[in-house]
Amino acid sequence: MTARFYCADLSGADAVLNETESHHALHVLRMREGDEAELFDGGGITAEAVIEQTDRRCVRLRIRSRRTVPLPQRPSLTVAAAVPRGDRLRSMIEKLTELGVDRVIPLRTQRSVADPRPGRIDRLQATVISAMKQSGRNHLLKVEEAMEFSVVLRNAAGSGQVLYMAHPGRAAEQQPVIPERDALLLIGPEGGFTSEEVLQAADYGAHRLIWPEGILRIETAAVVFSALLLSRLHG
Amino acid sequence: MTARFYCADLSGADAVLNETESHHALHVLRMREGDEAELFDGGGITAEAVIEQTDRRCVRLRIRSRRTVPLPQRPSLTVAAAVPRGDRLRSMIEKLTELGVDRVIPLRTQRSVADPRPGRIDRLQATVISAMKQSGRNHLLKVEEAMEFSVVLRNAAGSGQVLYMAHPGRAAEQQPVIPERDALLLIGPEGGFTSEEVLQAADYGAHRLIWPEGILRIETAAVVFSALLLSRLHG
Repeated sequence: MTARFYCADLSGADAVLNETESHHALHVLRMREGDEAELFDGGGITAEAVIEQTDRRCVRLRIRSRRTVPLPQRPSLTVAAAVPRGDRLRSMIEKLTELGVDRVIPLRTQRSVADPRPGRIDRLQATVISAMKQSGRNHLLKVEEAMEFSVVLRNAAGSGQVLYMAHPGRAAEQQPVIPERDALLLIGPEGGFTSEEVLQAADYGAHRLIWPEGILRIETAAVVFSALLLSRLHG
Repeated sequence: MTARFYCADLSGADAVLNETESHHALHVLRMREGDEAELFDGGGITAEAVIEQTDRRCVRLRIRSRRTVPLPQRPSLTVAAAVPRGDRLRSMIEKLTELGVDRVIPLRTQRSVADPRPGRIDRLQATVISAMKQSGRNHLLKVEEAMEFSVVLRNAAGSGQVLYMAHPGRAAEQQPVIPERDALLLIGPEGGFTSEEVLQAADYGAHRLIWPEGILRIETAAVVFSALLLSRLHG
């Protein structure tokens, strides 16, 4: 596969990689003038390009052709998940990017402990871009600022999304996925959602999703239920 | 939730935790004499127990009651996956344990690079146990020694498992899951399966599984397709 690089501006005849991407091209992949690369702007535009100039910190490419990649033909999926500790958050964002999840909202719940700082969320965008380079995805996954549980419920209902709540229970309590509607998936913290939160979500018509075997960690639940929802949203 | 500990022998009136589990009880959870715990032997027996004696490195518990937990009522799932680099292997085993996968075979393929050494596989059993403590799973996930692709195919066919191969392609090439049969899921290395391997698997009647959006990393593919298969095997 041709090496892929992120470049926010692909509108001109030339494209200049930022420092991170230039470093990857020059010092990890050891690319040089004349080498070909694929560029993506995160908004669905990709370009075939060739390196025309490099210095120690910067790569400039000439764009040969450009194409617009449409969004996947399916309803959107937003994941509102409590924040797992340490590297598990980074790993969760990486996997949700690979899968095709559209948006992630760090969720504040009654039993949540961690809350990512704004700087952390910026660094997560680097994780998103790195996963896009590897997976071939062309539209950015957006990581929002942390949000309160009740605000997420209200916004989702207001915008017509169907709510899905991952919460342990008997298999019979599992509720169906509606393939033709935009979806918002709620993933609770380590200690789970409180019964108050479960009732609150039920008031908004949230559908219950249950893993039939055991308790999943936050990041496992986010990936597993996103996979199950996306495969249904694709019809 | 009561703290859970692994103990291979729950047959007597008392149970003695090994060094790792004793350390977890004494120095992480700071438990002491009189505290209650749940024990599991990895073969489906669990016990309610109370700590009756501790020293710096060892915990002895008195067993109060014992119960046998049946295996999940579904066909089995074995995952034969190329070995991802570094910590991604540990993370993959952790998630497959949480999900309920029965067995993992590190897969040698034409494009595989990593091959875990025997010592590494022993350490992965510690990952399995740690995931079982947290997820409530009671039957060990078995991590086998690394095996050649062709041997895996032959063994699976010989034991009547249905083969599933995760390999990119057009959505129309996706083949159905047979819910009532034991399953073996093949996950290729970073560069993918070779066309020779794809043909070889097709000769054994392997069903093709396709993720409709982009290329998944080894450990992401293993988790995603295991989740999709298990949710179908549960019917």
